[in-house]
Amino acid sequence: MTSTVSHVYPVIWQKDQVLLIDQNRLPAEYTLVEIKNSDDMALAIKTMIVRGAPAIGVAAAYGMYLGAREIETENRELFLTQLEKIAEKLRATRPTAVNLFWAIQRMLNTARRTLGPVEYLQEVLLETAKNINLEDLKTCQAIGDYGLEALPKTPEKLTILTHCNAGALATAGYGTALGVVRSAWREGRLARVFADETRPRLQGAKLTVWECVQDEIPITLITDNMAAHCMKQGLIHAVVVGADRIAANGDTANKIGTYSVAISAKAHNIPFFVAAPLSTIDFSLIDGNQIPIEERDPAEIYQIGKTLVTPEGVDFYNPAFDVTPANLITAIITEFGAVAPSELKQFEEKQAV
Amino acid sequence: MTSTVSHVYPVIWQKDQVLLIDQNRLPAEYTLVEIKNSDDMALAIKTMIVRGAPAIGVAAAYGMYLGAREIETENRELFLTQLEKIAEKLRATRPTAVNLFWAIQRMLNTARRTLGPVEYLQEVLLETAKNINLEDLKTCQAIGDYGLEALPKTPEKLTILTHCNAGALATAGYGTALGVVRSAWREGRLARVFADETRPRLQGAKLTVWECVQDEIPITLITDNMAAHCMKQGLIHAVVVGADRIAANGDTANKIGTYSVAISAKAHNIPFFVAAPLSTIDFSLIDGNQIPIEERDPAEIYQIGKTLVTPEGVDFYNPAFDVTPANLITAIITEFGAVAPSELKQFEEKQAV
Repeated sequence: MTSTVSHVYPVIWQKDQVLLIDQNRLPAEYTLVEIKNSDDMALAIKTMIVRGAPAIGVAAAYGMYLGAREIETENRELFLTQLEKIAEKLRATRPTAVNLFWAIQRMLNTARRTLGPVEYLQEVLLETAKNINLEDLKTCQAIGDYGLEALPKTPEKLTILTHCNAGALATAGYGTALGVVRSAWREGRLARVFADETRPRLQGAKLTVWECVQDEIPITLITDNMAAHCMKQGLIHAVVVGADRIAANGDTANKIGTYSVAISAKAHNIPFFVAAPLSTIDFSLIDGNQIPIEERDPAEIYQIGKTLVTPEGVDFYNPAFDVTPANLITAIITEFGAVAPSELKQFEEKQAV
Repeated sequence: MTSTVSHVYPVIWQKDQVLLIDQNRLPAEYTLVEIKNSDDMALAIKTMIVRGAPAIGVAAAYGMYLGAREIETENRELFLTQLEKIAEKLRATRPTAVNLFWAIQRMLNTARRTLGPVEYLQEVLLETAKNINLEDLKTCQAIGDYGLEALPKTPEKLTILTHCNAGALATAGYGTALGVVRSAWREGRLARVFADETRPRLQGAKLTVWECVQDEIPITLITDNMAAHCMKQGLIHAVVVGADRIAANGDTANKIGTYSVAISAKAHNIPFFVAAPLSTIDFSLIDGNQIPIEERDPAEIYQIGKTLVTPEGVDFYNPAFDVTPANLITAIITEFGAVAPSELKQFEEKQAV
């Protein structure tokens, strides 16, 4: 099931620190940022040095360990109380992606369940973070391979449209939506990726293009508003996107613009897939109306590089995510297989943290 | 029927030359470019110093006069032959907007029909260009007022979404889509404009915002991919856009992204209006499949200001327009009234040039 068609790892544990690819500097510069403490990790998540729901989960897990390492006590109860404060700090970084909360909770549960001295708890937390990292990589490879099975059988060489970056950079590696792309590429089923540039932060133009170019996957960049036109021209055979949070009924929060692509795909009878690990599903939410939507700084809209694109005196609205209702989604691809949104419930018991 | 809620005129005849607002420099700088000959006018249209289908028509009409002025002959037939070459040069600037061809044809027909010496023909051509200019302004005011009548009756204060710039800057003044907005604003029926930024050239962020701010109309800027989400949130009561060419059946070519907005409007049961002068309708085309779609330089996608947004090794697709099928259009608003696309044919006889 594994594959060699990925060389991009955004979160790396090295010796006694985390190295993050600085995704704000891509594609102009490839820079690794050294993260040595939990404050720096919280800031890196908030400022999107690391981004993408699964990658945030992995980063937050290491952030929990870094925080655990900072706690100076040998009293187990005091340790757990202070660890809860680290968890609160990390939870406050981004509100929408549920993987963040999932990974933090798993680290907390691990600490609570582990017997022994504080020093041992700290060791176990590092191992758990490393496991979350490795599991996410394997999860992505499984998502990629299940996704490949779910893709249309014709034509033999598919053109796949994706939005934002649900790639290696958004995960421990390999990617979710781009995991499906990588598996299709490996098996000779991919003609080309079409990437929405994904305003306002341009993760498609900057990150998806960058990692496809790294892995020599053919890619065409379009602006977000061209997707429907491309579909009408017959240029797109399937849409595959990632997810930041999926409600129990399959309603999916993902990067702003996903909903628009889903509506267009439906209008053109093009299958629309969501690729995400089980940790992205929030079974506590009945539907997508309950998913909180982060609003970000309007500067993301009015400033590109050093260019101000709009005059003063205008108002802005900058929601970072939108919710695609389940009825627009052909299948949700997880590491346990691809299922219709209505069949998601069967996976609930597999999700224990 | 007239109104004072506009102070923006992109094409001005002054003394013996044309002054164009340089729309490539807005909103950072308000600059007037002096156009003294037909070559400069052709370049100004091609490089989009002047843009917007009706404004291009007005500019091309003046371009025809400037060209006529350059012809050094007293022989009427030779004059007409050379004027045809000026027409060819101006026609070659932009392929999609039909107003360009319409205005050039009207200038040619006027020259052919006018008796008298070359000098007199030149005078008549200047008068005709000035008439086209003035008529377009009146046309926009009529479109605005008919559009206001066609808008939903509730709520009293509407939020109108528009795409690209079909404003005063895209016409002789007042605007087509923004003409409807201005008439609604004048009559107290407008709460606010939502403007798509309109990638890749950002005419929404740069031009629509600029002219609404000039005229103190409340405006919120969003990225193109947020429109569907805004509709779902109940933030949009109607969509009004311009057009570059309308086929006889009502299929409408307009700025890339319009089609996507139309699909989303339909999905949310929000009325979708096209506002355009009769000169935008190409009754020679049965449907939108016959409208040529201009493709532009990929640099429009990969470069914003001085910032390169994507790495090398990627391909691009940059269609400047798309076609919205008639079945997604609630009504087409012309200077003779607002009608369903299927009723457009009744206006054919009014369109003699």
